[in-house]
This record gives sequence, C-alpha cells and structure tokens, in this order.
Amino acid sequence: MVVFLNGKFASEAKAVVRVNDRGFLYGDGLFETMRVFNGRPFRMAQHLERMVRGANFLKIPMPFTPKELHHFAGQLIEKNKMPEAVLRVTLTRGPGERGYSPKNAGPPTVVMTMHEITPVDPANPPRWHLVTSSFQIPASDPLASFKTTNKLLQIAASAEAEARDADDALLVNTNGEVAETASANLFWIYHDKICTTPTGRGALPGITRAVILEICQVLGLQTNKRVIKREALKNAEAIFLSQSALGLVSIVNLDGDPVPESPLVEKIYASYCEMLAKE
Amino acid sequence: MVVFLNGKFASEAKAVVRVNDRGFLYGDGLFETMRVFNGRPFRMAQHLERMVRGANFLKIPMPFTPKELHHFAGQLIEKNKMPEAVLRVTLTRGPGERGYSPKNAGPPTVVMTMHEITPVDPANPPRWHLVTSSFQIPASDPLASFKTTNKLLQIAASAEAEARDADDALLVNTNGEVAETASANLFWIYHDKICTTPTGRGALPGITRAVILEICQVLGLQTNKRVIKREALKNAEAIFLSQSALGLVSIVNLDGDPVPESPLVEKIYASYCEMLAKE
Repeated sequence: MVVFLNGKFASEAKAVVRVNDRGFLYGDGLFETMRVFNGRPFRMAQHLERMVRGANFLKIPMPFTPKELHHFAGQLIEKNKMPEAVLRVTLTRGPGERGYSPKNAGPPTVVMTMHEITPVDPANPPRWHLVTSSFQIPASDPLASFKTTNKLLQIAASAEAEARDADDALLVNTNGEVAETASANLFWIYHDKICTTPTGRGALPGITRAVILEICQVLGLQTNKRVIKREALKNAEAIFLSQSALGLVSIVNLDGDPVPESPLVEKIYASYCEMLAKE
Repeated sequence: MVVFLNGKFASEAKAVVRVNDRGFLYGDGLFETMRVFNGRPFRMAQHLERMVRGANFLKIPMPFTPKELHHFAGQLIEKNKMPEAVLRVTLTRGPGERGYSPKNAGPPTVVMTMHEITPVDPANPPRWHLVTSSFQIPASDPLASFKTTNKLLQIAASAEAEARDADDALLVNTNGEVAETASANLFWIYHDKICTTPTGRGALPGITRAVILEICQVLGLQTNKRVIKREALKNAEAIFLSQSALGLVSIVNLDGDPVPESPLVEKIYASYCEMLAKE
C-alpha cells in the first residue's frame, strides 16, 4: 500500500511521524473519511471544506489547497489501484513542544491513506445491530462540529458495543437526547417522514447526512430535523445510519429488539449508490 | 536528546511511529508528565498507577510493568544527563485499523521523552496570569479521571489564553462550576482554609493535587474540597495551581484583576520543593 505523507508518496512501512507530532502527543488534529468509487473520492470538496473549517477554528494552517489535495488523492488512488475503497485524510499541527500551547508547532502533518471496503450492492444496504451506549456525549461541545482526532469516547463506545455483539453504539447526549452513533449520523422514519437529529447537540454535521437529506428532497420525501429520546425510537417505522465509508446502514436490531425495515430505506440507498456512480 | 521507544533508546530524530498508530489516528492513548529532580522522577509510582487505571479502562495492555518503566526512566535520565527536567510517558494502543473499533490493534506503543524546565527556586513559586476560558468542559465525562491524549479542548483554551496575554485558562464545567485550568488543578484560600475543587466534575485527579493536600496535612493547614462558581473566586485570599511539571503556581491576576498573594502559598511551595529534594 502506498501512503501520501506531506507531499510525497511512501510505502506504508516508511510512512512515519516523529513522536513529538502533536497529533500523537495530544490528538491535536482533524481527519476526513471518504468513499472512493470508480476511482473518485465522493464529495471530497465537502469533506475538505469541513476540514478547512476545523483547521481555521484550531488555527492549523493547511499546507495544501483543497485542489492540491484532490489532485494528490487521485494519484494515490491510481498508485494503489483501488477504484473502490475508503480514503482517509489526516491533518495534524505537526511536530511541537510538550504542553498544550500550540505555539511554535509545525509545519502541519498531512497524511492520506487508503483502506479496503466491501463493494456497494445497490439492492442490499448493510444491516447492523445497534446498542445504546453507557457513555454519554456532551450536549454542548465547541468541537463537536469538527471531525477531530479526539475519538476516545467513540472508541470506548465501539468496544462496548462489540462486547455486546453489536456493530455500533447509539450515543445519547448529557441532556438525555439521542445524538448520533459512534460512527454515523442517525435517521429514523416516522409517519413516512425521514427524521434526523439536529446538529450542534452532540451530532456531527455529517457530509453523508447532507447527501441523504438531498436525496430525500429529490425523491419527494418529507424530512424533519428533530430531537428524540431513546424511548421514542421504539415507535420508529425504520432506523438507519449515514456515514461516509458505507453510505447508508439499515438498523435491524436495537438493544436486542428487532427494528422494522422499510422499503423507503432501500429506495434511499439505491439513490445513494446511483449518486456514487454518477458524480 | 535520547528518547525511549518500545524498549529501545533512539535519537529524537529517529523516534518515529507509523501513521497508523492509533494514538496518531484517534488520540487513542494516555500520558503522564513528571517532574525530574536530582535525577529521579517525582511520584512516578502514582503517575504510573493512574496510567494503569486508564489502560485498564480503555483495555490497552501495558507492555511494561511500572517497575520496568521506572528502570527505563532512570536510564533515559542518565543518557540525557538531565537531572532536573520533565519526563513524559506516552502509551497508545499502537498500530491499528481505520475505524473506532480497537479490535486487532497493537502492540501498544510506549514512548518516554525528556523536556527542559526552569529549575525550582524554593523561595519563589512561578507566578501566572489566568483568564477564564470561553470553552466549557463537560461536568460529567467518563474519561475525565484519566490523562488521555484527547486534549483539543485544553489546546484551544491555552491558545485563547495566550491570545489574551495569560499563562493558563480557567475552565468552567457545563454546570457553571469552576473545574480546573487547562494545565493544572485549582486551589484557593478562604478563611485560611486551603480549598480545591472535587474531582469527577471535570477536574482530573491530579497527582500533584494529592501531594499539595498531603503537605497541607503535614503543615497542619485545614483543607476543603468544594464546588465553587467563578464569581465566588473573587473572595479568595489567594489562588494557586498544582501541576506535575511546575509543582505549584501562584496566581497573581485573574481576568485582568490582581489576585492577593498569601504567605501560606509560599510556605506550601517551599514544602513541595523540600519533598522533591528528599524523595
């Protein structure tokens, strides 16, 4: 596997960073994950836009323009001969001093890596079991709108879900509202309306979440951004997730109880697969 | 500078980790910072105990026993000829896959690095200006009792404090209670009582915090663990911080207002310096 590291391509084994990289020291960084299809990273512009927003907030200067990163990503996909895969872009503040102050750190580190993924099957969305996590996420977190490399809560929640034979963990915020899952945004269907939680209460403004909302509009499906409690999810006609690696995931079981499936979810997934192929 | 990396000693420039180290990918790790004095890391046993607690919680197997780490630390201090310094120990889950699941990751990465520090002057504790951060920390965070490498909030708060010409940022939790600062635990004096915030409401159970409480007991000073609001800090007879790198820091200014100094703070600092020299 070939890896992109600070403007150069290197073999995986040689792609290393110094132990004083602040990404390693303190999680002082951001990342984005994209689905690659037909050799093209899906919605890379939107992903990089979110990264730039985060970098501005954290005052990490981006060493490459989105256009340059797009170009390097194309080269990386070609070098690895992986037309269908997942692409990860990582940006950290780079080497720096001990202590939280970001003073004198840099230049920033930029890494792009590729990862295998099950090919999409437009007729069959992935199906997952979900469990409610015992870990609450903060309802108000100034960093929640960025995809940072501070992911211990998500890691602990994922490990807990796996220990309970589930595929992902439903995260409730400190107000007791359902926010998202460890790896995805949450959607559910109620009275034929496609509902999702609002962002800014613990939920990341997902790029694929926006894609799903776009698809619903095209399909003429009504959408609704609303707060929901865990208990109320019992009344959902279907539950599904959106995330960049898999697109859409249908939830078939929540905390041990079967969740009904809806043809609407398959319809949305088929549209997502069409979009992937076209863009 | 010589660095300890996974059982070996390497020059700083050669101390590298793969870009798939989960510490770099997701902040999937823990660290400890210790004051080194007379060639010995102060309270290393307690620091490693906290690291082991965190590693157990996160299910990261420790590749070395505390005794082995203590031994390696001694060698590192000698190799670097730095009898007075700061020692940092970092533990991450090691190389792993993309995705939050910690499955199949490892072996863990262990790094020890040394850093220069201003020598202690028993007659003069460091004096800092403090500002109240605009960033709130969660009042209930299952990870707050461990020293994790997820430190973006502290980094953002430190950068904000520096932009306001201050040395550290006072962090208020989402309940509106003062919790700690970005880099330290908080103490204040009220009616000759040495007060500090309780842990478990955003405040890390600091090793040096425990040392200060121990010193107060020896000196016959009354202590009190209590919740305090930012406004009430105005009535404090003195404010000081405890942290492992500097020991004790006297606060002389909070949000632009001078803070009175107390001879009690100097007395506690002198005892801390004595302890450093003795242990």
